[in-house]
Amino acid sequence: MRMNLDWEISCGTAPDRFFPARVPGAAQVDLARASGWDDWQFADAYRRFSPLEDQDFMYRAHFRAPSRASSESLWLVSKGIDYQCEVYLNGRLLAVHEGSISPVEVCLEPALAEGDNVLEIKVLKAPKKPGVPEGREQASHCCKPPVSYGWDWHPRLIPSGIWDDTALVVRKAAWLGDVALRYTLAPDYSRADLRVSAAVCGAKDDVFLTFSLLDAAGRSVLQNTFPAAPGAGVDAPATLSAIVADPRLWWTWDQGDPYLYSYELVLQDASGAILDRRAGRIGFRRIRLVMNDGAWERPEGSPKSRSDAPAQIELNGRRIFARGGNWVAPEVFPGTIQPARYRELLDLALGAGFNLLRCWGGCLPGKDAFYELCDEKGILVWQEFPLACNRYPDDEAYLRVLRQEAGALVARLRNHPCLGIWCGGNELFNAWSGMDDQSLALRLLGAVCFEMDPHTPFLATSPLVGMAHGNYLFRDGDREIYQWMPESRFTAYVEFGVPGLAPRQVLEEIIPGDELFPVRPTAAWKAHHAFGAWDDKPHTWLDEETLRHYFGPAGSLDELIAQSAILQGEGYKAIYEEARRQKPHCSMALCWMFNEPWPTAANNSIVSWPARPKAAWSDVAAACRPRLASAAFPKFQWARGETLTLRLWWLDDTFGHPEGPLDVRVRLVAPDGVRTEIGSWKTLPTRDNTNLPGPEIRTVLPAWPGTNCFRVEVCVAGHPEWDSAYTLAYRP
Amino acid sequence: MRMNLDWEISCGTAPDRFFPARVPGAAQVDLARASGWDDWQFADAYRRFSPLEDQDFMYRAHFRAPSRASSESLWLVSKGIDYQCEVYLNGRLLAVHEGSISPVEVCLEPALAEGDNVLEIKVLKAPKKPGVPEGREQASHCCKPPVSYGWDWHPRLIPSGIWDDTALVVRKAAWLGDVALRYTLAPDYSRADLRVSAAVCGAKDDVFLTFSLLDAAGRSVLQNTFPAAPGAGVDAPATLSAIVADPRLWWTWDQGDPYLYSYELVLQDASGAILDRRAGRIGFRRIRLVMNDGAWERPEGSPKSRSDAPAQIELNGRRIFARGGNWVAPEVFPGTIQPARYRELLDLALGAGFNLLRCWGGCLPGKDAFYELCDEKGILVWQEFPLACNRYPDDEAYLRVLRQEAGALVARLRNHPCLGIWCGGNELFNAWSGMDDQSLALRLLGAVCFEMDPHTPFLATSPLVGMAHGNYLFRDGDREIYQWMPESRFTAYVEFGVPGLAPRQVLEEIIPGDELFPVRPTAAWKAHHAFGAWDDKPHTWLDEETLRHYFGPAGSLDELIAQSAILQGEGYKAIYEEARRQKPHCSMALCWMFNEPWPTAANNSIVSWPARPKAAWSDVAAACRPRLASAAFPKFQWARGETLTLRLWWLDDTFGHPEGPLDVRVRLVAPDGVRTEIGSWKTLPTRDNTNLPGPEIRTVLPAWPGTNCFRVEVCVAGHPEWDSAYTLAYRP
Repeated sequence: MRMNLDWEISCGTAPDRFFPARVPGAAQVDLARASGWDDWQFADAYRRFSPLEDQDFMYRAHFRAPSRASSESLWLVSKGIDYQCEVYLNGRLLAVHEGSISPVEVCLEPALAEGDNVLEIKVLKAPKKPGVPEGREQASHCCKPPVSYGWDWHPRLIPSGIWDDTALVVRKAAWLGDVALRYTLAPDYSRADLRVSAAVCGAKDDVFLTFSLLDAAGRSVLQNTFPAAPGAGVDAPATLSAIVADPRLWWTWDQGDPYLYSYELVLQDASGAILDRRAGRIGFRRIRLVMNDGAWERPEGSPKSRSDAPAQIELNGRRIFARGGNWVAPEVFPGTIQPARYRELLDLALGAGFNLLRCWGGCLPGKDAFYELCDEKGILVWQEFPLACNRYPDDEAYLRVLRQEAGALVARLRNHPCLGIWCGGNELFNAWSGMDDQSLALRLLGAVCFEMDPHTPFLATSPLVGMAHGNYLFRDGDREIYQWMPESRFTAYVEFGVPGLAPRQVLEEIIPGDELFPVRPTAAWKAHHAFGAWDDKPHTWLDEETLRHYFGPAGSLDELIAQSAILQGEGYKAIYEEARRQKPHCSMALCWMFNEPWPTAANNSIVSWPARPKAAWSDVAAACRPRLASAAFPKFQWARGETLTLRLWWLDDTFGHPEGPLDVRVRLVAPDGVRTEIGSWKTLPTRDNTNLPGPEIRTVLPAWPGTNCFRVEVCVAGHPEWDSAYTLAYRP
Repeated sequence: MRMNLDWEISCGTAPDRFFPARVPGAAQVDLARASGWDDWQFADAYRRFSPLEDQDFMYRAHFRAPSRASSESLWLVSKGIDYQCEVYLNGRLLAVHEGSISPVEVCLEPALAEGDNVLEIKVLKAPKKPGVPEGREQASHCCKPPVSYGWDWHPRLIPSGIWDDTALVVRKAAWLGDVALRYTLAPDYSRADLRVSAAVCGAKDDVFLTFSLLDAAGRSVLQNTFPAAPGAGVDAPATLSAIVADPRLWWTWDQGDPYLYSYELVLQDASGAILDRRAGRIGFRRIRLVMNDGAWERPEGSPKSRSDAPAQIELNGRRIFARGGNWVAPEVFPGTIQPARYRELLDLALGAGFNLLRCWGGCLPGKDAFYELCDEKGILVWQEFPLACNRYPDDEAYLRVLRQEAGALVARLRNHPCLGIWCGGNELFNAWSGMDDQSLALRLLGAVCFEMDPHTPFLATSPLVGMAHGNYLFRDGDREIYQWMPESRFTAYVEFGVPGLAPRQVLEEIIPGDELFPVRPTAAWKAHHAFGAWDDKPHTWLDEETLRHYFGPAGSLDELIAQSAILQGEGYKAIYEEARRQKPHCSMALCWMFNEPWPTAANNSIVSWPARPKAAWSDVAAACRPRLASAAFPKFQWARGETLTLRLWWLDDTFGHPEGPLDVRVRLVAPDGVRTEIGSWKTLPTRDNTNLPGPEIRTVLPAWPGTNCFRVEVCVAGHPEWDSAYTLAYRP
């Protein structure tokens, strides 16, 4: 029996003034609503929230206890309270808790009154490490995700409050705790040896469990009943072993069906009365990270160090290329996220051709709906723990909370087939973080993942040796993507970015009308990351300097947006396609970043807040089609009379769909739209998951006065779905 | 109460023929003794042992049970049986065990007879993975150390039997299991927060424990009594927290005193009767692996991978350079090792200037005496688990034994102050092993070490990124140590080798007299690794080709030995001194190898079996003095009339002993012994742990007809203990 409460909330600045609270939600949003701050995303209005960082909030709810049998008890069960809280019933402190990820479960019986009860949850002010300047390092001593302390695409705005489902629950004589479904697939996938472990809490007598597995059509696959002794708690769960014959496998959407079974686990007492039940879905797949092709040959010679870390995903025995992006919490206040938002964004990820999302460690993990949708849609998740760009300490107090948070996250997510990779956090083995292989936090996370979910790969951090983060600009110094990318030889491009302006509609919502053009570093543009987002690159993420370098000054906002869209789209296309050309040595290309938590004016995201694709989203979608004809260019800008060169490629990540020789033609598109064929290629027959390098095509560029762009099209006869088009800069 | 047994043994080839057994020892050695094979190290006589690989051995002992109170029980307690065994009492199977490291403890009561008892331990034939060729890969599925399956310095000879202390023990109503002493030193070392955890086994009633700590002079430092409930087993040990004020720190011998406290833990029942006691020593030190100087600056640029793994030892806050070597089990049959052997060898390690030994993972770990002596002598131990150069599988059967073996080793060694680094094993992240960061065996070892001994650094394997193994020859292709070493820039040279012939006395003991000279690839020389030890380098480890290149053909065995000694000595000196010049970026230099398990004819070892230093041992000792004047040469061989160049250095690993400016002089020593001063250097004052680069010295070499060597001496006025001398090759 669940019972939702009507919550109200007060802020430490006026502790007696209560106003309505939404649960789940965020304290600051409730206050903003009560105060009429409906425009906090506009200009730099988010700064109003700053003083609230140092305030406690008090949630309060009145209720009458439901009637209960003598063996039953009333509990507060919350999936997440951000970040530290105290729970009071009728003025009596019943629990203190630290950590946004681990659930808060409090038995209310010790202080429950017959009539009216007052439940209070005091959410403490944002944790801040003393003595360090404003910024992410203030969260370097705790498990509070650091992004909200300010990032180059996230305002300084630290949410707090009850952020996930929370209710009162009547528990019977015993109830289900953590339920783990683990399985081993036979080498030939002909069977899954399934092992169900269920922690049974509270039981004073023998109980029993019934596990049922149904296929996607609802047909029963197996049903087994097994006993649980009274001591079958978290440390010694009740277990069932069962065999699933000929399981249908779960695949990413581009490799097959993301097939899901459903299960139900029912807990009953000796009389057969149902005490608790748990339902969910399971997909059968084997995921591994294996050594990339050619990685064993490096390093060469002697003295010799180690070979690269494995970064090649093998799904059900198939080596697949991970095309994807970095996912961040899609709201500054993650408590306000509804499943519909996840669905919208994940449909855009699917539309972009992505089969993997890296859930970046600076943020809170998603709510359950996110992982359920990834299961359904066949998108793999690389899940990081909430550590990013900080040096988290070896001290016991921190490690105790981290163990609790990590254990809760692994327990919550390990049954999802989408969950493909665990990772300790972002860029921790780099100078700006200062952690290393000996850091106890990462050794702890490795131990927790190994003990709780050994068959899911674990990375201590990203990048590891062989993998890469960067670059984040179209042109840095004198080097363009078109040069550094072919010269690089990494196993996985796990972050790379090209900035782009937001669509006009977004800009009009966040920038005062009179500041829209010419663009200049006003408070609004700066607050939204167009300027000053990186200290040493004051033009980020607008990068007007590069736009001017190729196109000259823009005459209007729309022209500037269009210029920016070309660079972002072509830049991302160049990286994704080059990374794919480097297959099989390279096995991943994940853009930084897919989405964003609030409307930025300029950013590396390809989808603006809340779920509005930028123009570059279509270019990424083109570059991430499972198969396409592609052209590699040595540079972006070409002059009249210069010999344009490009190399043709067939890129193919598919299995089981070989094609006969393809007829590929290359056309130059003049500014007036006239097309000239400049080369052709009759390919070899295509093979599973195999790229084909093609010929180099050359042509002398004609004079096109008054233009600064031209296009090249690569067309496959009879298969327009595999055609590609590229826009390049032109100097008349 | 302990009771040693008289053991006899039989071999599967003649199961009824029993002969005397030494326990601890090795089955094959007993058989050899009984058969009169006292010459198995001579020529290739060790091959006699080959058929025994596939035989079971049966240990047998007759005894009468000692009288026992009703609360007491009789146990077989063995510290180690190699590798799989079955324990029978009076014909009844009481236990099966796999793993040489984890102790075998069997309660004998269920099958004990009033009068005569027959205890039998069947040691099963050597494990061999089916279907793989002879060699180390045969041990790739189990925890049997692979070295005995054949290595380039170890014959194919697989020991088995009871290899560590074994006796019958009368246990009282309760006894002590694993005892862990953990402590945290205050940042300023002013106190140690000590936590004693003791597993109490067998207790049915409340018992209590008394922990006493004494300083080295036997004065009491603290004494505390604490209770243990009946359930205080391995999973919930009884614990005591105590504070040691102003602890004297444990240091390596070159940095201070290896100061040891002693402790005793006494288990008593409620009446005060003593049930069990445990005594040992403890040293207080804080050891960490921290990032090497300059390591954060790498890699440069973007895209960017991770920085190097930390390889800099910090002992009690002091960054120290690890000068040392790779230690291997000093016998083919480790069961025969006596503490005196450890002492002799460790004195030679100390004499060589070593402060760290890497106990290489291909071998069995040492017996307790080894670690006790390292504690006393102030030598750090880098301890590997028994995995080397194989791809150990992810399967559950292997992982179960590995968990048991690893847990036992960590429990046994973690209280030793000498134990400075845990490491998963040798060269596992390289092509010839084929393991990687996702291998479950290494994830398991990381988890075990983190959970049981979190404050000791853990390396998944060696080398990690930034560290190096190799090279192993004086000259490989056209490159000498003098070229590749200065061009390398690693954080730690963890293995490097220069081969050298054994002393004449050793050769005479193992090579037939008529084969001694000229040296040629006879069975005896090949069996002893002078030829054919590396498939692609048939002259290893004699490396006659290189000797001839510099010195021409040798006219006698003594001349050949002398030539080899020059190359080995100068080669090792060149590597150690260059690694030290690369401080602080470089932090370790560990030769491959310090010792050897049997008398090789040629090998990279600097100490021949059993404990006979080669000539190169003195050169290593010279290069590993904590401080010395050193000269760096760009090559080894110089011609008449050529300009000899060298660069002077002051190398200093000491703290707290600054010197004023030093007066360094360089002398050329002609073949007739005449010395000519060719340069001098007045240094800056010396500083703690800081090298000083000096000037380049040049001189034109005179004509010395009929010689192929000359010497250079570097002398420090008033400090002959810091002088150095180098032998170089000469072409008249």
